[in-house]
Amino acid sequence: MSLPTYLSAQISDETETLMVSGLVLESGQRLSDVKIAYRTWGDIANAKDHAILICHALTGSADVDAWWPNIIGAGKAFDPAHDFIVCANILGSCYGTTGPATLKPGEQHRYRADFPDVSVRDMVNLERVLLDELGVDRLEVVTGPSLGGMQALEWAAMYPERVGSVIPIGVGGQHSAWCIGVSEAQRMAIQADPNWNGGYYSEDSPPEAGLAAARMMAVCTYRSWQSFDERFGRSKRADELYEVQSYLRHQGQKINDRFDANTYVTLTHAMHTHDLGRGRGEYRDVLANIWQPALVVSVSTDTLYPPHEQQALADLLPNAHYVLLESAHGHDGFLIETEELGQMIVHFRTSSRAAGTLQAVN
Amino acid sequence: MSLPTYLSAQISDETETLMVSGLVLESGQRLSDVKIAYRTWGDIANAKDHAILICHALTGSADVDAWWPNIIGAGKAFDPAHDFIVCANILGSCYGTTGPATLKPGEQHRYRADFPDVSVRDMVNLERVLLDELGVDRLEVVTGPSLGGMQALEWAAMYPERVGSVIPIGVGGQHSAWCIGVSEAQRMAIQADPNWNGGYYSEDSPPEAGLAAARMMAVCTYRSWQSFDERFGRSKRADELYEVQSYLRHQGQKINDRFDANTYVTLTHAMHTHDLGRGRGEYRDVLANIWQPALVVSVSTDTLYPPHEQQALADLLPNAHYVLLESAHGHDGFLIETEELGQMIVHFRTSSRAAGTLQAVN
Repeated sequence: MSLPTYLSAQISDETETLMVSGLVLESGQRLSDVKIAYRTWGDIANAKDHAILICHALTGSADVDAWWPNIIGAGKAFDPAHDFIVCANILGSCYGTTGPATLKPGEQHRYRADFPDVSVRDMVNLERVLLDELGVDRLEVVTGPSLGGMQALEWAAMYPERVGSVIPIGVGGQHSAWCIGVSEAQRMAIQADPNWNGGYYSEDSPPEAGLAAARMMAVCTYRSWQSFDERFGRSKRADELYEVQSYLRHQGQKINDRFDANTYVTLTHAMHTHDLGRGRGEYRDVLANIWQPALVVSVSTDTLYPPHEQQALADLLPNAHYVLLESAHGHDGFLIETEELGQMIVHFRTSSRAAGTLQAVN
Repeated sequence: MSLPTYLSAQISDETETLMVSGLVLESGQRLSDVKIAYRTWGDIANAKDHAILICHALTGSADVDAWWPNIIGAGKAFDPAHDFIVCANILGSCYGTTGPATLKPGEQHRYRADFPDVSVRDMVNLERVLLDELGVDRLEVVTGPSLGGMQALEWAAMYPERVGSVIPIGVGGQHSAWCIGVSEAQRMAIQADPNWNGGYYSEDSPPEAGLAAARMMAVCTYRSWQSFDERFGRSKRADELYEVQSYLRHQGQKINDRFDANTYVTLTHAMHTHDLGRGRGEYRDVLANIWQPALVVSVSTDTLYPPHEQQALADLLPNAHYVLLESAHGHDGFLIETEELGQMIVHFRTSSRAAGTLQAVN
């Protein structure tokens, strides 16, 4: 395993790996010996009609069952008894797929800051290579939350003939100025850490304080004023620390046990590239050509990707249905209100299939 | 001048200073030789009926005309022709009043991390000492935004006989878990800076990168998704930096030209103490006893101090009127929509006086 031990320990035993000899990035740069880590659920025989691609968010992994409870299972949104479900760790991440924390091919040191800039479209292309290898030609559904939703939307735009429908969750059609700004402040905190060293930190002394501060800021934006108020209020611990301070410090510590600072910088930069219109002409026209049935899901208290942004996205997609997931928990609502979200997905899949059948009959 | 040159350069020539031999803090600790920097507008003869205290926010100063345009002036909310207006730099700040960046009395080094914890109530007490010295017995209005509004509310609770009315702007009756959390992440960024040194940094090497990251995070929360979207969108500069990144980096640089890191830590900690109920009994009962006419002003897009929080405050104050300042600019809306805000204040002062006259007649 070419990852640092603390990272490879996070990857479940069910994870498989595909080695790709080379991947040409949007930038024109070629990455060689690219590994992609992935998991599947269900029988490959289901793939003909019911192949599902789940794309993960910023600090996620291929282990959907770990980060998105109640979404895969008997009677759930995606059911291994009928579906063939794939999730791959994204390009540039640190859970088995090649990224900044991976050893450079044939060398004894890691990419670190030498890892090239990647885009959401590069992530989709690596996923496409995996699906080709698995023999999955067509996806009934591509879905994912946040950065995962960016990939889902790009799948529909890049490979329309392979995508039956998309379910972007908690994400718009373009990364907003506010999201760029919030992540810029987080990267600045990482880079203020004395161990950062321009991204060339050592195994023994990563920029933990900076990554912790970045994560603490991020967690505030993933949750909401309401959820913090209900959960913590102004309660204090015996040592006079407010409960919310203690919670955030714990979150800052935890990210250092499971994530890499360069990876955080690489993936937040990749999110900046999210713009369905980029290089394709007028934004409106590009969206008008994404004709797949789409279920655009917002979380009612999401301040990073506010509901009006997704309503606007759904309005521009010719075959989209917009739904609001009621939650007090902010952006993270998609990880919490999984029962209701699962039902929304089941309902959408049933209606899309019914519409498909009717079209075939007519 | 006992402040570092870069800080003292920010203070206008009109600023006056009062030396207070000692101030006993809420904690019981006594600070000796406390300086308080302040400015006044208008004739002291106006003070009998129309004394106004304006309290500033986190990084403000006594120079109201610099940070709050269009609020003081002929025909404005507060008019030097009729009013006597006072604004003091708050305890623990770095614009002339004693704080962490001040030289310790009789010593050659600054307080730095030795500066004691202070509370919003300590700030009010130092302002009270100043007003005693100026001979101002009674304030027609105490007002301020954000941390300034916390002081205004505390004035009404601590010295009810001296306060005619209060106008808290963009602030609730208790500092929320979300606000505590956001500032905790910011302090972590400051403390991740190698120059922080537990708060004992030198004149030549302050923790600039950490303070910049903290300020960048803060600026995101002071503005709004909408305002960033309208102002920056996804525009890029020639060097491929998004405009919003460039703007935030500039804000991070600017704070280092005008503020001190320990001061930032001290004042954000002081904000945590804001709770009108603290040590006074049931929150509702305490508010029910703040009988002064109050104008509670919210900014419609404020996510730090959301409108529903201030509506709840106004509901609990027996003599309060709630108004919503429409703005796309988030918390900072009170610095931007000053024309409309000024009119709200003028209207409130006129109505309060009319009500006062009627009461006197009856």
